[in-house]
Formats: sequence, C-alpha cells, structure tokens
Amino acid sequence: MKVTYPLILINYKTYLESLGNRGILLAKAAERISTEYGICIAVAPQFLDIQKIATEVSIPVFSQHLDPEPPGSHTGYVTPESVKGAGACGTLLNHSERRLRADTIEDSITRSKELGLLTCVCANTSRVGMALSALNPDMVAIEPPELIGSGISVSKAKPEVIKSAVEMIKSVNPAVHVLCGAGITDGTDVLRAMELGSEGVLVASGVVKAKDPEKILRDFASTLTR
Amino acid sequence: MKVTYPLILINYKTYLESLGNRGILLAKAAERISTEYGICIAVAPQFLDIQKIATEVSIPVFSQHLDPEPPGSHTGYVTPESVKGAGACGTLLNHSERRLRADTIEDSITRSKELGLLTCVCANTSRVGMALSALNPDMVAIEPPELIGSGISVSKAKPEVIKSAVEMIKSVNPAVHVLCGAGITDGTDVLRAMELGSEGVLVASGVVKAKDPEKILRDFASTLTR
Amino acid sequence: MKVTYPLILINYKTYLESLGNRGILLAKAAERISTEYGICIAVAPQFLDIQKIATEVSIPVFSQHLDPEPPGSHTGYVTPESVKGAGACGTLLNHSERRLRADTIEDSITRSKELGLLTCVCANTSRVGMALSALNPDMVAIEPPELIGSGISVSKAKPEVIKSAVEMIKSVNPAVHVLCGAGITDGTDVLRAMELGSEGVLVASGVVKAKDPEKILRDFASTLTR
Amino acid sequence: MKVTYPLILINYKTYLESLGNRGILLAKAAERISTEYGICIAVAPQFLDIQKIATEVSIPVFSQHLDPEPPGSHTGYVTPESVKGAGACGTLLNHSERRLRADTIEDSITRSKELGLLTCVCANTSRVGMALSALNPDMVAIEPPELIGSGISVSKAKPEVIKSAVEMIKSVNPAVHVLCGAGITDGTDVLRAMELGSEGVLVASGVVKAKDPEKILRDFASTLTR
Repeated sequence: MKVTYPLILINYKTYLESLGNRGILLAKAAERISTEYGICIAVAPQFLDIQKIATEVSIPVFSQHLDPEPPGSHTGYVTPESVKGAGACGTLLNHSERRLRADTIEDSITRSKELGLLTCVCANTSRVGMALSALNPDMVAIEPPELIGSGISVSKAKPEVIKSAVEMIKSVNPAVHVLCGAGITDGTDVLRAMELGSEGVLVASGVVKAKDPEKILRDFASTLTR
Repeated sequence: MKVTYPLILINYKTYLESLGNRGILLAKAAERISTEYGICIAVAPQFLDIQKIATEVSIPVFSQHLDPEPPGSHTGYVTPESVKGAGACGTLLNHSERRLRADTIEDSITRSKELGLLTCVCANTSRVGMALSALNPDMVAIEPPELIGSGISVSKAKPEVIKSAVEMIKSVNPAVHVLCGAGITDGTDVLRAMELGSEGVLVASGVVKAKDPEKILRDFASTLTR
Repeated sequence: MKVTYPLILINYKTYLESLGNRGILLAKAAERISTEYGICIAVAPQFLDIQKIATEVSIPVFSQHLDPEPPGSHTGYVTPESVKGAGACGTLLNHSERRLRADTIEDSITRSKELGLLTCVCANTSRVGMALSALNPDMVAIEPPELIGSGISVSKAKPEVIKSAVEMIKSVNPAVHVLCGAGITDGTDVLRAMELGSEGVLVASGVVKAKDPEKILRDFASTLTR
Repeated sequence: MKVTYPLILINYKTYLESLGNRGILLAKAAERISTEYGICIAVAPQFLDIQKIATEVSIPVFSQHLDPEPPGSHTGYVTPESVKGAGACGTLLNHSERRLRADTIEDSITRSKELGLLTCVCANTSRVGMALSALNPDMVAIEPPELIGSGISVSKAKPEVIKSAVEMIKSVNPAVHVLCGAGITDGTDVLRAMELGSEGVLVASGVVKAKDPEKILRDFASTLTR
C-alpha cells in the first residue's frame, strides 16, 4: 500500500468509536473518500484490530506504536515483525500519549526501515521535531499537546509552530515529510496546514468522534483537491 | 471459552516461531491435544495475532498484557475492551519481561474483571506472589526469572519456591489458582509442579521453540491424565 | 535515630518552601515540637538536602525514594548506601507521585533492611496496602491520591478506607505499622486517624505550605498527647 | 564555577569507591590536578553527596541527572532548583544508564538553562548525538554503550564514531561542545579523542575504580598540556 502526499492519517487511539466493527466501518469510509478524491488516507487502528482492517480495506494501515526489541523473549511487546505480518505498512512513534526515549526512537526507526515499514514520529515542539528528523524517519508530525483533542486547530492557533517546524526540520533533513496535528476538525484547518508547508495532517477525535466521520473526511479531501 | 485446572498456558512471547501462521498451527496443535486428553490448554499469542487465532480455535486465548486505561485518548495502549473484542478470555499481567507498578496491577485486574476477562498475574518470588494474590487475580504464576528460558525447570530446581508460594498465596487468598513456570520442558516437570501444589504451568520456549511442540504438549497432557 | 509511634512524618516533596535553608528551619521546628511534646516527628527532605539536615537536627530523617540497584554502574540512581551514608534512617517508597513496580518494591525493602533503613511504603487503596504489607515493610501509608493536597482529610472524608486498611494489613502482616495521609491539616484530622487504628500520619502540603508550620505541628502533637 | 575546554568530567556513578568521604577525596585530587595543570576537571557525584562536595572543593560539580518537573507535588524527584541550591553548576542528562524521553530532554535542558545550569547530554550513537544537539545543550557526550566500563577506549576502538559525531553535531548546532566517553583509561586515549575533534572526555570507572585515581588524572592532564 503506497503512501502519497498530501496525507490524511487517522489515529484511532483507543476510542470505543473506533474499536472492532466501528473501526472497520471507519476504514471503509476512508477508503471510499480516498478513491473518490484521489487523496491518500491512512488509518492507525488499535493493535488487535490491525490484521482484520488490513484485510478489509485497500488503504495504508499504520500501527499506533511498536517496540524495537528483536523477536524473542519479550512478553507483551509489539514487534515490527508482527506489525508487518498483520498487513500494516507503517507506524506512529512517540505520540504524545506514548512518548519514547530518544535512543528507542532511533532503534524503532531502524528496525522499521529494515522491514520496509514507514515511520511517522510525533513531536511536541518544533525543536523536538528538528531533533527527531535527524533520526531519519519518513515523517515527523508536529502536535502541540495542549491542542490535542481541543477542537482548536494547530494550523489556526499556532501557525508559527508549523512554519518554524517545517523550516527547522528541512534544514536538518530535507527528505522528511512534515505533518501536523492537534485540533483539526474541518477542511479550512487542513488547507491552512498545507499553506504553512505541512504535507499532511494527523487527526484523531476530530474524525473518530465526529457524528459523521465520512462527511468530515469528504470536507478534508475536497478542500485538498479544490 | 472456559478455563479449567490443571491448566497448561502457553506464552507465545514474541518468538518468530509463534508469529502469524506458525502461531495458528501451534494453537491448532494445542486444541487437538486438549480435546484428545480433556486437559485445558490455553494460548497467549502476540497482540496482533489474537483476533485471528481466537477465530480459528476453540481453546482459551489470553493476551500477554493489557493496559488499565479506559477507552479514550490513549494512543498505543492495549485496552481490555480490545482484548475482549478480539475474542480473548483473559490476560497475563506483570510478566517478568513486562513488569508493572503495584497500583497498575490492581487497576488492570479490576478492569479485566469488569469485562469478564481472567487474569493471570506473574510474580518473581513467593513473597511477591503472596502480595499480588491480595489484589484478587484469578491466577498467580510464580516464575523465578533466573530460570526462564533456561531449560532447568522451577519444579525440580526450586521445589521449595513453589511449595512456599502455594502456602503463602493460599493464606492470603484461598481462591487464587497457583501456576508455576520457568524452564518447564517435559511431563515430569509438569507432574512435579502439580505434586508441589500448583494447579497448572506457564510455558513458553519449552513448547514454542521445541522441534515438535505437539509432542511436548502430548507429553505434558498424558502425564497429567495418567 | 529511633522512630516511635505515633509518628508524624513530614514529606517535603519538591516544594520550594522546603528547599535548602527553609527545609532546615522546618526540620528544626519539627525537632522543637518533638522534644517539647515527646512525640516522634520525622522529615523526608529533598535528596540533595538530606545530608545537611541529618547533620543539623536530631530527629529521624527519611529519603523520599531510593533505588534497589546495588552500588556500581548506575548513573543517576539513589542507592540505599548513599541514603544511609547521608545520615537518613529510612525511606518512603512507592509514593503516589513516584510509583514503583511490585518486584522493585520488594527489592527496595530487602536492600533497605540489609542496611538498617526503615521503609514506609505508600499505597493508594486498602487492597494495595494489604498486598504491599506482604513484602514486610516497616510501615504502610494509605493515601487516597484524590485527597492528596486537597485539604480534605482522609480521616474525615474516607474513614472506612483507613479502617479497612488497618484490618486488611494486620490480617496479612500484624507487624506492619499503618500510617495514613492525604489532606491532613489539623489536630482533629490526626486524632481521628489514630481513633481509626492508624499509628501515625504522613503529611506534606498541610505542614510544608502552611503559613506557620510550627503552629500546625504543635496542634498535631498537642492533640496526640492530650 | 566556570567550565572550560578541554574538559575532563568524572562521572562518579554509584560506585562505593566514590561515595561519601572517598568521593570527597577524589574531588580534592581532581582539584589539585586541575590547579597544577590549568585543565578544567569537573566531578559528578551521587545526588546526596553533591552539597558537601560542592562546599569542599572549587571545581565544577555536576549532577548525574535531574528531573524537569517544576517545584511542587513531586515526591522523590531531583529538581534543578535543588541541584543549583546544593552548589552544582550543571548536570548530565540521558546517560546510557538513565535514558530519557526526547521531550523530557528538551524540558530538562530548558529548565536547566533558566537556572544557569550547564547540560551535558549523553548519546549512544552519532545520529542520536546529532538529534540531541538540536535541543541546544551545552555539551553532547558520545558514549557507545558497549564500550562503557570495558577498558577499551572509544577513541581507539571506534575513532570513526567520534569523528562522524563531531561533524554531524556541528552541522546542526556549531555551539555544542562534543565530549566522548567509554573505556578511557589513559592519556593516549584522551589525546586521541582530542585529535578526533572532541573537546573533552567523560570518564567513570577508568578513574573512580583505579588503584590511584590521582595518577590517572595526572596522566590525562599532562597529556592535554603537553
């Protein structure tokens, strides 16, 4: 499953609204909109739903996290091998709700690359984003934690954060794609994010907990193709 | 899926030998032996394989770990809801490779009980086993970490640990079932464990990495029904 | 420095009000009240102030935490040897702001005992208190986290928690002394805690952040000796 | 206490050989050699010894770690305020034995700077060093973990690691001073490290556990001033 930019990446978190069958329905809605508008939409379901969702849809599926430990005596860990084996094509790393040590991020990126998994590393500030881009992830997603789940979009409330993040990250590693997230709920938020230099958005509650997620996704996609 | 005792609980860990299709084959072998001998055999696959294995076999499936956080903004966590939804009937907790805080163990047990999930809490010493039995898990598995993966069985090398664990745990909470683990590789190890008062075994490499896991499981089961 | 019961144990936390010279003044006030009323008052200063305070006063000094790792290649850890060497006679463990794994608590208690350091293990619930008492600490302090720093005393708001904690802990390990904490701000809170079966109180903001800590301590001590 | 380069920074770890009075003697030896050769030598004692050592010697004293949490309800944490108050002038961060989350490193650096504390951030690889230099520490110390305590010096065994680290770090942040560590035991190791572009060394067992630490320090210092 190929990831292209601009990218809309939906983090399912552990919301009940995205668990099991509801998660499959959301992935199918994402797939429909993706096909209709020719925009790449990816989903990051809960661990135990990844395999089923990856079977049911033809859009990129991400894990929400993985552990760099090699296969072996590691009870309760998420190996890159199991993520790959379940049909995912990439993973989030270092989300604000699952922060990682700097050396663990490097190890996780290295292990993911070896297996051909894409990595989207989250950062709370431009400076941390700049730092993490040195570790060669495919994407860095800037998310000011105070705006996550707030309904106040980062692209409107803190445009300078996205702008400086893009500049700082590209100065260290021009190959890294910059996403942004936190509080994104409609197409104008997405559009503004693109204008500021980001190449995609990481969304969660704004889509997952919406009354009509497909409508929100259509709004995002139509704005991006206008 | 009902768990009965004596119980053979197979921890898949993150071995490559138990990932994906190989994990399904192992679960089917366990199912065959379980049916043949009328002995309860349960499996604890890697997170991303739980759903598929729970669909394919009719033996109890456990998670290797879960997080007590409620559904919501918790990226990269394993909710009890997702474990239940995937078809598992219980979970390991506090394995020596995934130790937890004391208060987290209580929260995880409470959350699991609310959803009807069984809990098997691991402990490194008799005294920690005694302590954790106060938190009302269904099972406590005693595993001296230095014997895990050693091929030297706890029931032969440290019989006094199992004996004292059974006594100490029952003195605090007679309802708790005591399992033992670490280094168990053949039927005589299992038999000895039962004689010392345990009601089951937690096994991993001894089965998963065996040349012929079904043969090992048959040896375990036949000894228990002799 | 001998600890006797009833015990008033003052957790300095990392308040500015208890740092450096202000911490020494508070310890001296505690020493005066202790001498005046013949009641044991102990202090748990910030790590870097322990040595100085232990030199300046003749009351028991506790660490707020310690790590069980043996002396060696462990940069940035607090060894029991360093706590002992600095003149402290004991330590808090597993405070709600510094929770520990169950096995680490056992290791920390064992290491402390070997060096003659007293241990006061904190627990958020009666049941966790019961569990931790199996690990043979000298004291268990019950502190419902939601009341910490609230000004609403556990002894008045949740008397049943203290009562059940005392019963459950004594049923497992009669040698353990039960303290209680959270929200204790005056003598009637302390008195009520004693009536419910606790043998001391663990206090922090109620004393440290008081306008006149000595007055609060006098109120505590005079109530206990009335 | 001013830090100048080349810098010899002695990490006391939690060795018994550097605890209490032995730690003071080592600091006094470092002070003598520092004065004799005009080379900056700093020490990083165990937390509870910092205050006393900072009083007894006139060389820079570092903490081995600190926590970024603000003063307040944080039991068992090491605040920058307490490090400063005890007389230290800086801190190690992210040592291989005390790794930190990427965002915590940024917060710790920010908090340290606010109080005028120097930061020396450790990294296991050139790439992690490059990443962490973006967070604006004063120093980055490159230490391949497999060589720590080995007696095989990084400057001889992995010269290319130091060389690439210096280049990569300076490309992101020319203001950062690069130290190197792991396995350094004599003056030729130090000299080689300087030739490769590092501006100092981080040493531990090579000095602390030496039969005659002062002799080793003299060897280091004389090589640097030759």
